[in-house]
Amino acid sequence: MKASDSHFRFRLDLSYIGTEYDGWQSQVSGRAVQDVLEKALATALRQPVRIAGASRTDAGVHAMHQVATFDFPTSIDLFRLQGSLKGLLPPTIGVRRLEQVDPKFHAIEDAIGKAYRYRFWLDTRRNPFQEPFAWSVSSPCDRSLMEKAAQDLLGEHDFTSFCAADSTAKTKIRLIHDIKWEHDGPICDLWIVGQGFLKQMVRVIAGTLLQIGAGRRPADSIPDILAAKDRIEAGITAPARGLTLMRIFYGRMESWDEIRRSLTW
Amino acid sequence: MKASDSHFRFRLDLSYIGTEYDGWQSQVSGRAVQDVLEKALATALRQPVRIAGASRTDAGVHAMHQVATFDFPTSIDLFRLQGSLKGLLPPTIGVRRLEQVDPKFHAIEDAIGKAYRYRFWLDTRRNPFQEPFAWSVSSPCDRSLMEKAAQDLLGEHDFTSFCAADSTAKTKIRLIHDIKWEHDGPICDLWIVGQGFLKQMVRVIAGTLLQIGAGRRPADSIPDILAAKDRIEAGITAPARGLTLMRIFYGRMESWDEIRRSLTW
Repeated sequence: MKASDSHFRFRLDLSYIGTEYDGWQSQVSGRAVQDVLEKALATALRQPVRIAGASRTDAGVHAMHQVATFDFPTSIDLFRLQGSLKGLLPPTIGVRRLEQVDPKFHAIEDAIGKAYRYRFWLDTRRNPFQEPFAWSVSSPCDRSLMEKAAQDLLGEHDFTSFCAADSTAKTKIRLIHDIKWEHDGPICDLWIVGQGFLKQMVRVIAGTLLQIGAGRRPADSIPDILAAKDRIEAGITAPARGLTLMRIFYGRMESWDEIRRSLTW
Repeated sequence: MKASDSHFRFRLDLSYIGTEYDGWQSQVSGRAVQDVLEKALATALRQPVRIAGASRTDAGVHAMHQVATFDFPTSIDLFRLQGSLKGLLPPTIGVRRLEQVDPKFHAIEDAIGKAYRYRFWLDTRRNPFQEPFAWSVSSPCDRSLMEKAAQDLLGEHDFTSFCAADSTAKTKIRLIHDIKWEHDGPICDLWIVGQGFLKQMVRVIAGTLLQIGAGRRPADSIPDILAAKDRIEAGITAPARGLTLMRIFYGRMESWDEIRRSLTW
């Protein structure tokens, strides 16, 4: 299991509350999830550690399941390290799993799919329990229009219109495998499973669908927006707090049942 | 609808995250939920307002449903006030409902029952999404022992042993109508419905049941603890963060189905 350049590789499966952090990727502020994790690992392992995450979640975006790896020159007592991390990390970051993996395992390149959930809270009244995890929308919204419009996003498309203008991705073509809606009173959850996502893609999709539900855009406007390949044709970027990275897939895609089960750890 | 002493009475149905506050009841710190609400109401209505809550939740205890009333000398534009409160209150307090009621309505005296939920997170790994709302217990716990023991709490008993030692309640006799358990992976929810509860009663019950589940007390020890009428015979007081006041009943008790529906607003 030892790699050619003499290191061991370890995989962390994580969960965090995005509201508290400047996104996943290391920032000068030191307030990115990566910064806080690297600091805790360096303290526990008594030497600097560099981690690589599967998904660069934006500031404010939550993760029920994020995957990261780090290399280390020696083997590690994983049970002990997991205990140390629980003490060193703030209550808003949890380590779901910690294991040694093949040094060839790559958190980004080996990920074959991801599931995101965007939560809308469709009620004029505030629910403090949902506030940090949903976009509270007071204006009337026709959920069936949103559901209908979302169907046009399925499959392989050039998602330039639904991508942050400053994205540096080489290609904007992405494949959306599945879309699912769940409703529970004012809670309206949009689940999207895809091979990979562009910068702010799910948030621009959520913002555009909400505008469709609110009657500001026709329900059949998605194909035209996609065809335009221009960010200004799509809707607003929905707030980060409503978005949660729910699951990253390795080896094979997972069914909705498997995703559901993974949520209960 | 105007009372004899010339005032109108208004009812607030509230929801709040207890972690952020020094409990319900007004404190010198000004950080009690009551303080924050009275300040917001005074700002919105341009004169001092005194509110009376149905339940004095402890510091750190959450409320999905709390009821309070206040009197005011004139009628109020309720739609407008609810909008103002949304702006004036912090995101951790929500007004679920605001209405004018009979001036004889009394939030405490008219309450005929309450439903509390105590949530255990039974896993050594931390879940940041559950952390603020559950008691994380790392030691092994037999849920069936907890469920079995809890049955002995049903009905009318003298709950002196399960009551904070500094309670000033005249009688410690209380009636527990129903107890229900819900399990979802590491989440273990204890639901208790009763006529009324003594200070810290649900938390002492939760702490004692957890000790039974962990094998530190026999599963049949509840009757002896009740009979002792002595706080030191019961277990530890479970952390406030795991407790949520879920529902207050007026007029008649509600079924589990009705309670469940009320949770989605």
